[in-house]
Amino acid sequence: MAAAELQITKQTRIGMELQFHWEEVKAFERQPDGSLFSWCERFYCYQHLIRGIKNKRQTAITLKYDGKEFKWEVGECLLQKLETEGIVKRVFPLHDETKRKKLLYSWALHWWDFTNQPIDEIYSYFGTKIAVYFAFLGMYTRWLLFPAAFGLTLQIINFGYVLEFRSLRLLVLPIFFVSIILWAIMFSQFWKRKNSALLARWQISYSMEADVGYKLLGMDRSSVQSAEKPVRKAHIKIEKEVFQRNEWFGRLLRFRNDALVILSIICLQLPFELAYAHTYEVMESDIIKFGLTAIYLFAIQYLTQVGGKISVKLIKHEDNENKEKRADSLVYKVFGLYFMQSYIGVFYHALLHRSFLTLRQVLILRLLVSEVLQNLWENSLPYLKYSYKKYRIRSKKRQEKKSSSGKIQFSSRVEKEYLKPSYSASIGEEIEDGLFDDLLELALQFGMIMMFASAFPLAFAFAILNNITEIRTDALKLLTMFKRPQPRAAATIGAWLNIFQFLTVMSICTNCALLAWLYDEEGRWKIEPGLAAILVMEHILLMIKFGFSRFVPEEPAWVRANRMKNATQAQDVCSKRILRSISAEKESREEKEHVVEKEFGMKKEE
Amino acid sequence: MAAAELQITKQTRIGMELQFHWEEVKAFERQPDGSLFSWCERFYCYQHLIRGIKNKRQTAITLKYDGKEFKWEVGECLLQKLETEGIVKRVFPLHDETKRKKLLYSWALHWWDFTNQPIDEIYSYFGTKIAVYFAFLGMYTRWLLFPAAFGLTLQIINFGYVLEFRSLRLLVLPIFFVSIILWAIMFSQFWKRKNSALLARWQISYSMEADVGYKLLGMDRSSVQSAEKPVRKAHIKIEKEVFQRNEWFGRLLRFRNDALVILSIICLQLPFELAYAHTYEVMESDIIKFGLTAIYLFAIQYLTQVGGKISVKLIKHEDNENKEKRADSLVYKVFGLYFMQSYIGVFYHALLHRSFLTLRQVLILRLLVSEVLQNLWENSLPYLKYSYKKYRIRSKKRQEKKSSSGKIQFSSRVEKEYLKPSYSASIGEEIEDGLFDDLLELALQFGMIMMFASAFPLAFAFAILNNITEIRTDALKLLTMFKRPQPRAAATIGAWLNIFQFLTVMSICTNCALLAWLYDEEGRWKIEPGLAAILVMEHILLMIKFGFSRFVPEEPAWVRANRMKNATQAQDVCSKRILRSISAEKESREEKEHVVEKEFGMKKEE
Repeated sequence: MAAAELQITKQTRIGMELQFHWEEVKAFERQPDGSLFSWCERFYCYQHLIRGIKNKRQTAITLKYDGKEFKWEVGECLLQKLETEGIVKRVFPLHDETKRKKLLYSWALHWWDFTNQPIDEIYSYFGTKIAVYFAFLGMYTRWLLFPAAFGLTLQIINFGYVLEFRSLRLLVLPIFFVSIILWAIMFSQFWKRKNSALLARWQISYSMEADVGYKLLGMDRSSVQSAEKPVRKAHIKIEKEVFQRNEWFGRLLRFRNDALVILSIICLQLPFELAYAHTYEVMESDIIKFGLTAIYLFAIQYLTQVGGKISVKLIKHEDNENKEKRADSLVYKVFGLYFMQSYIGVFYHALLHRSFLTLRQVLILRLLVSEVLQNLWENSLPYLKYSYKKYRIRSKKRQEKKSSSGKIQFSSRVEKEYLKPSYSASIGEEIEDGLFDDLLELALQFGMIMMFASAFPLAFAFAILNNITEIRTDALKLLTMFKRPQPRAAATIGAWLNIFQFLTVMSICTNCALLAWLYDEEGRWKIEPGLAAILVMEHILLMIKFGFSRFVPEEPAWVRANRMKNATQAQDVCSKRILRSISAEKESREEKEHVVEKEFGMKKEE
Repeated sequence: MAAAELQITKQTRIGMELQFHWEEVKAFERQPDGSLFSWCERFYCYQHLIRGIKNKRQTAITLKYDGKEFKWEVGECLLQKLETEGIVKRVFPLHDETKRKKLLYSWALHWWDFTNQPIDEIYSYFGTKIAVYFAFLGMYTRWLLFPAAFGLTLQIINFGYVLEFRSLRLLVLPIFFVSIILWAIMFSQFWKRKNSALLARWQISYSMEADVGYKLLGMDRSSVQSAEKPVRKAHIKIEKEVFQRNEWFGRLLRFRNDALVILSIICLQLPFELAYAHTYEVMESDIIKFGLTAIYLFAIQYLTQVGGKISVKLIKHEDNENKEKRADSLVYKVFGLYFMQSYIGVFYHALLHRSFLTLRQVLILRLLVSEVLQNLWENSLPYLKYSYKKYRIRSKKRQEKKSSSGKIQFSSRVEKEYLKPSYSASIGEEIEDGLFDDLLELALQFGMIMMFASAFPLAFAFAILNNITEIRTDALKLLTMFKRPQPRAAATIGAWLNIFQFLTVMSICTNCALLAWLYDEEGRWKIEPGLAAILVMEHILLMIKFGFSRFVPEEPAWVRANRMKNATQAQDVCSKRILRSISAEKESREEKEHVVEKEFGMKKEE
């Protein structure tokens, strides 16, 4: 019943996607682990059931709890009432201890596996989105092996004896640059293929846009459908106009918001970051430098939070089609903030010093600080919070015990989980979950290593080390430190892939600029064959970036063939039955109206 | 019957796409002009019927005609037999005289309408592809008004009095360049929207990929479907591997072909074109120049034909998924040939002289020659051919009449149409139709006016004049000079839109180069703020080009909502009935096997 109201569609055994009905349960395909529904589907069913308890009597009901008394109004949702009264503190999914333990040993503590992860089990425990994130992280780390090895080789050769041969460096660095750009282009395309292969394995047909249709427009479709022809035509026309108006209005609104964010970043954040970088360079005393950095870090933390909150507010006014679209819109805006914050200082140093050595030092510092400190921070902070909360509750309980002895701690596991922090984003808890922070970190790292690749080839080796630990610490974090996250229906990493692609394009441009600097050490800025070659190379790489997706499609042929097969089968099976019912219906109506169809010159005798 | 074998799907009245069955004819939506099938669908039905006449008896039948005798073998197609025997000369669709006359007056001879065309009537007479071409041509011409007016204004001001103010020119030309690039970007995106709106109006759901599924793999799907589970799993795995192998093999083959064509263009055509351009510049005697051009034109015609034939051969070996994909592959290859041939000379002149005036002269010459002469050529040649053929037949008939008088000319209209040339491409008659030549001309014109826009803003005005005449002359050509073309199922202009977009990207680069030359008239090639600004502008424009499609989707919201509505309705209607049948079938099988489903702890009593 609940499933029917929720309109869950499932894959059937003959390969079609149909609406689920309990009576026909045997017709449906099972999950890989044998259960009927995935964790995400079950979660939504539970939620639907709990939230569906309403007072269906004619009068309000009086409820009593702990001495208090309150009225449950007609048609009111029980859970909402209890939440507002403070009796139910929070509804959240609990960890499944046996499965959690199993995952802990087969996944989080399996250090010697490097990038291998039991993705299917992660999927059935945490849902699609988290599993897709870990699949992405694993594939990214595995693919990083190639540039890491290449960069390490270059670095070893460089430290060895060829540092002074400028001509060799001029040959080797462009080769490195071109090969890592090609690597990044191929990575993003092959990730798309892997993603759709994963979804095919989990029997998810990714139709996020399917729920768009009527939301923009509050029209009743049955009325449209059954209306007579002239009325229907007029209806269609009005509908079309409303859609067009809504479409452009929504687009303008989103454009205005984007423009606002971009403008405020350029007008407020850019001068601030540049001012910091400049003062840092100008100051000579180390103590002042240290103080300045402390003030800067404090200020930037605060500013970023304010920016994030403004973005969340802006997005709520936008007319985004569904939750995932809204989350994507937030991702773009917040990434804009972080992009400026992370890279503008590096660009400034590079421009000011025009020296690869200084740039390298800045990069090493940034990479180490961001990766090591950030990892420590993000892993220890929630743990400390949790410990403190637990400590406070325990001391409170102890006090209570002293006053009224003999109370039993019967709900300890649930209580313990309640104390755990929830897996949420540092910005905008209600829209995004904790994956936001993890993916942001990954994207910033990718940008850092790619955009300055030709200045610091060793960065890839740092990144791979960081990511291998990241896989296990993230897993540990999810399994031990947080409440079990609410599953989300999104089946891709969404906007983040676009950001990775944007960073690839940016890195084509920045690396070419770096190479031009390297080539033109005297600062003559003359267009010589060398510089012209760099320009040409840039254009060719940009062409490859935008042309490659035509060469390798996003969906492997077998996934597409599968999809097509399902569609064709569905059509074959549906066709006859439905047609018969429609034409029978029409016929009876037409017979009532005594219309003789002249064009066909025949009449059915029935 | 024929329709059922052909697997025609049609839009039904409740908005779903279903397979057509004659018994349920009333359930289906009609065409805008009231007929049940579109011209294209009818054509394929006719063809299926004619080609389906086979000898179904046990023995061969002896047929007699004109004194000759031949055997119609068992299972042989009659039409094929007659064609090989030379009795049936050709099967082609005839013009519908009343409709043709009506179109002639409302479309081809309606000169004062400028870009307005009765697209719906063209669609119902010629089918989707030709109607889409004319819709594209009309929209392109209408959109050209803006740059044409802008360019004309610039030219008038320029000729007036500001030719010497270099600084003003440096300001005005970049503005012109940026605005026409933005114009081109918006045009290509809005054309996509217009195209999908047209298809929605004509009730065509463009699922060209739907017929891919099983073609790659000669597997019987029913066997896969009904097999037992372990067997099926293994089957799926093998299927997947075969698909992967085929996918990459096909891709490699296509890549090899593309590489072959590109290499041969670079190694053979480029030196040839450059040699011609160079000799032309070096020669001083006008007579030698004239002779050289004549030889060049002759040679290039021949070479292009050879290149086209080679491309057609290459494509036949490719594993393209369907006819339209194959046609697209051909389009890319042949366009490569023409691209070199049309622009490399202009580039050479521009590079050699580094003067806008010379470049302008070359461009005017090329535009006039290509547009005026080509139009004359393509319109007069088929007419002359047709006249000559008619003349020959007439004189032959006259001779026959003399020998055996009293013969009646009973099939004159059919005979006259048989004499008309067919609407075919100059390259590869069997793959592409005459639209190939028209679209090629349009693309080359677009490239010429866009790539050198900042050197010759007036070109847009030339182009708009040319296109307004092109609309009517093309219409006239189709209606009076050719056999009625066979309708094609393609519902977009296909690869040509990609070529237009490629030319837009190219024009960003070339125009920036031109502006840089203009800026740096002394040839110092120093990176000054001006040149740096041009480079930055180029990058920003490239970003806009690739980002714009995210901002404005290819499908208007109302078309998408319509599509979604249909999909949802189809699911709602299908769901229950099919499920019941599947689970009933499964149940009966399982009951036979005496399996007790323990997980649900219940059993149906039936």
